[in-house]
Amino acid sequence: MKKGRLFVVSGPSGCGKGTILQEILQDPDLYFSVSATTRQMRPGEVDGVNYRFLSNEKFEELIAEDGFLEYAGYCDHYYGTLRQPVEEHLQAGQNVILEIEVVGAKKIREKCPDAIFLFIMPPSLSELERRLRKRGTETEEVVQQRVSQAAREIQCADSYDYVVVNAELEQAVAEVHAILHSETCKNQNKKEIIREVLKK
Amino acid sequence: MKKGRLFVVSGPSGCGKGTILQEILQDPDLYFSVSATTRQMRPGEVDGVNYRFLSNEKFEELIAEDGFLEYAGYCDHYYGTLRQPVEEHLQAGQNVILEIEVVGAKKIREKCPDAIFLFIMPPSLSELERRLRKRGTETEEVVQQRVSQAAREIQCADSYDYVVVNAELEQAVAEVHAILHSETCKNQNKKEIIREVLKK
Repeated sequence: MKKGRLFVVSGPSGCGKGTILQEILQDPDLYFSVSATTRQMRPGEVDGVNYRFLSNEKFEELIAEDGFLEYAGYCDHYYGTLRQPVEEHLQAGQNVILEIEVVGAKKIREKCPDAIFLFIMPPSLSELERRLRKRGTETEEVVQQRVSQAAREIQCADSYDYVVVNAELEQAVAEVHAILHSETCKNQNKKEIIREVLKK
Repeated sequence: MKKGRLFVVSGPSGCGKGTILQEILQDPDLYFSVSATTRQMRPGEVDGVNYRFLSNEKFEELIAEDGFLEYAGYCDHYYGTLRQPVEEHLQAGQNVILEIEVVGAKKIREKCPDAIFLFIMPPSLSELERRLRKRGTETEEVVQQRVSQAAREIQCADSYDYVVVNAELEQAVAEVHAILHSETCKNQNKKEIIREVLKK
């Protein structure tokens, strides 16, 4: 049985990561791993879709059992990636996508050295600023904070396997598709294929 | 200036390598490097298309100048990959494809460690045999020789970066496309992109 591949996607807020993933996840062969959190569910959110909402006790129990590929505390709440669903889907031969910020991604790299890391970039910081302002949902102060945060995150992009610049959505989606496709035929089980082909 | 990537494609006779490359080379951004040889031009062949036809003296002069990425003698003639056109196109930012057998590919790997190696496989040896026989151009003896030769070559496939099984032409072409696309966005110059994005 061929194991699935684990893909980790990072990119600053406003880079278009969510829209790209939405397109990519049309593929039923991909499993998107939903993060777990202890924060309150907000109106409109669905457990298991936006997050897996866990109690503080349950989350800490899972930490004690090494149940997370990575986790972190942020604004008095925990956020983390559950190990079990990821490993089950990989074992079943399905490819898994995690969307995760740069610090969490670094932890995943240590636990899963075979994972493939993609960083989605805006074409420039000024374009990112324009996109964030266009949303109209954030104050100017928050926009400036996000741009500074983006600049810090982008400096980590060098350690990713692939950097995709999202200047044109369609082109960026095509690039991510190509990466997923080629990495899944970059078989780790070449020996097995060779044996099969030579058999008859 | 972004340097082009070098792709080396191998695969046994009858695996459909030529047909796949014909599809792939519709892309004008790819440069296909034509091998040089000292054998006689055959009726219908065109210099610079099928081969670059060179005199024995010229070929040996180029060997002395380290003018080949690889070369070999076969049936009293030389065959080789000229270094200069490959390097010029790579420097100009163009991606280059070489079609080459397994021994030559191994030599290229030593000289060009950044090259990407693709091996095209038939789905099975019996299917390869069927395809070779269907051509109707070879004697049964030659078909059997080719199948044995294919088995030997397939054993080298493990050292290639990608193994593409050509069971369905369309799917194999899509896989090779994805490999080329993703490898060209697997930027060797991530640092430069990051610097550009952070500039403004």
